[in-house]
Amino acid sequence: MFTDLPDASIHSLGEVKLIAAIGEWLGSEVSPPSPCGMGDDCAVIDTSHIDRQLLTTDSVSFGRHFDTTVSAQSAGAKLIKRNLSDIAAMGGHPGPALLNLLCAPNLRLDWLCEFIQGIRQTCERYQVPIVGGDISTLPSGQFTAALSLTGHMRGQTALLRRGAQQGDAIYVTGSLGGSIYHKHYSFEPRLAEGQWLAQSGVCSAMMDITDGIAKDLNALLPGDCAAHMDLPALPLASDAFRRAQETGHSAIEHAFCDGEDYELLLTLRCGTTQAAFEADWKQRFPNTPLTRIGKLEPRIGEARYLDASSKEALPWIRGFEHLSGS
Amino acid sequence: MFTDLPDASIHSLGEVKLIAAIGEWLGSEVSPPSPCGMGDDCAVIDTSHIDRQLLTTDSVSFGRHFDTTVSAQSAGAKLIKRNLSDIAAMGGHPGPALLNLLCAPNLRLDWLCEFIQGIRQTCERYQVPIVGGDISTLPSGQFTAALSLTGHMRGQTALLRRGAQQGDAIYVTGSLGGSIYHKHYSFEPRLAEGQWLAQSGVCSAMMDITDGIAKDLNALLPGDCAAHMDLPALPLASDAFRRAQETGHSAIEHAFCDGEDYELLLTLRCGTTQAAFEADWKQRFPNTPLTRIGKLEPRIGEARYLDASSKEALPWIRGFEHLSGS
Repeated sequence: MFTDLPDASIHSLGEVKLIAAIGEWLGSEVSPPSPCGMGDDCAVIDTSHIDRQLLTTDSVSFGRHFDTTVSAQSAGAKLIKRNLSDIAAMGGHPGPALLNLLCAPNLRLDWLCEFIQGIRQTCERYQVPIVGGDISTLPSGQFTAALSLTGHMRGQTALLRRGAQQGDAIYVTGSLGGSIYHKHYSFEPRLAEGQWLAQSGVCSAMMDITDGIAKDLNALLPGDCAAHMDLPALPLASDAFRRAQETGHSAIEHAFCDGEDYELLLTLRCGTTQAAFEADWKQRFPNTPLTRIGKLEPRIGEARYLDASSKEALPWIRGFEHLSGS
Repeated sequence: MFTDLPDASIHSLGEVKLIAAIGEWLGSEVSPPSPCGMGDDCAVIDTSHIDRQLLTTDSVSFGRHFDTTVSAQSAGAKLIKRNLSDIAAMGGHPGPALLNLLCAPNLRLDWLCEFIQGIRQTCERYQVPIVGGDISTLPSGQFTAALSLTGHMRGQTALLRRGAQQGDAIYVTGSLGGSIYHKHYSFEPRLAEGQWLAQSGVCSAMMDITDGIAKDLNALLPGDCAAHMDLPALPLASDAFRRAQETGHSAIEHAFCDGEDYELLLTLRCGTTQAAFEADWKQRFPNTPLTRIGKLEPRIGEARYLDASSKEALPWIRGFEHLSGS
């Protein structure tokens, strides 16, 4: 994705022409004309119909969030989808976004064009206009892109991480573990599912799984609760087993700790009829598995995650943590 | 700003503790509690009183936008002020922001704390809450921070770059050139001035000067116009002369080409009484110089900038361009 040929690099274009090229690569649907899009000091957005706006930001870095085994297009798509997953986790609808590119001057122009194509296709699909951005230089061989995404709620209240209570059931969409092979870039943000959950009124808390439930589920747990996990029910991805064979750890451990699943993790309000909720879901989202993986029970002692059958504390206390030495 | 001592680096904290520390360094005024601030998948912002939102993003990179001669606090302040200058250039009021930090693991923790203090003080002053963010890792010795800033108009229409016409006078705030010594980080974004200009109704177009008027003024020029520049009137900063002594180029050239002045460049609608406009300004902003530096005249031939007295084309056709080989 980097080159020593001056004419094939972004350096050859210079900033003004590069920005113009990116605008063209995005197309007029994703890159609307100024002042609704790029070209002025700020983009001007009509928010007259929005009472509650959502704001989120996330980045992808070469060598951290993707490598040369992932196509430029998939890397671009991942940047958008990571942020869409955050909007999904509130039950929101996506809106305009800002794109920051940090590129080495020797980044290949055709690679960047493919990366932008991945952005374009994903933005077209989810109707996300890129209304502004910024380009900075990084040392040779480096590439990072950050997106800041707006969103909004339509009537309903945003589904927060806090709100769960004793007795609530814990659910997860899709399957977990082994995302390192494909899913970390091929996942689909659960937007429709999140929106439906937000309007259903039966969901007490929700988030998306980025670091693995071992770490992420903590954020949903009230201080007086422990999560009693139904381990046999855990929806293990086939790649969790493949990963387990490689590492010698268990598939369950990978489901707990791998992260980058971008599934929804949610709690169902205590007192809701689970069978009716699950039947409703199945009718509405026949292609998205939904699994009850545990329940919030009163906390006794230190343990936050317990095996629901043995009542023993689970050993996995955190998932993937950036910057840390783990 | 980087260290080989593990305990003094951000690496020693890990992501979760680092995010918590940043929240504390920002203080509760700049970092409001979730869901209005950090801590959930998205921040939830009340936009019920906003019809037109402004969105902008800009970054600062170590080695590009600041170096070790600039204090961490000034570098943090610069990040916020660069973005505020974009809001000022529309005549807008600033709102919530998202912060992306891209740091090498060996970044000194105390340096980052000072950087965040610079952000905090500037955000407190301009009432900008930091409502979300993201931390990514860069290779050893690297640091970049990007901010995405929202803003809004209060009633009046945003002042765009397009809108200028033949006969309009060209004005600039403050003085130009030699920003490399101090002004590139010590500048004040012209927010109050921009807001007043937006509601005055006499301004036809506006932008802030980031790359130098040699490049930036182009954006205000309609295709059928050339800018006839009143060169003796150009408000040269004393640092433009200092820079000229170092480089052997003229102070005027530095005023045209240096960039990073973060002054407002605007056109006064043809037919407006200039004396009355200037008197109004002086009363309202006695500490911010405002200078008429030229006029938009019909374009004859290729030249876009002419010396108003000799009618000869000016040789400086562009200012600082990122990524380019200049």
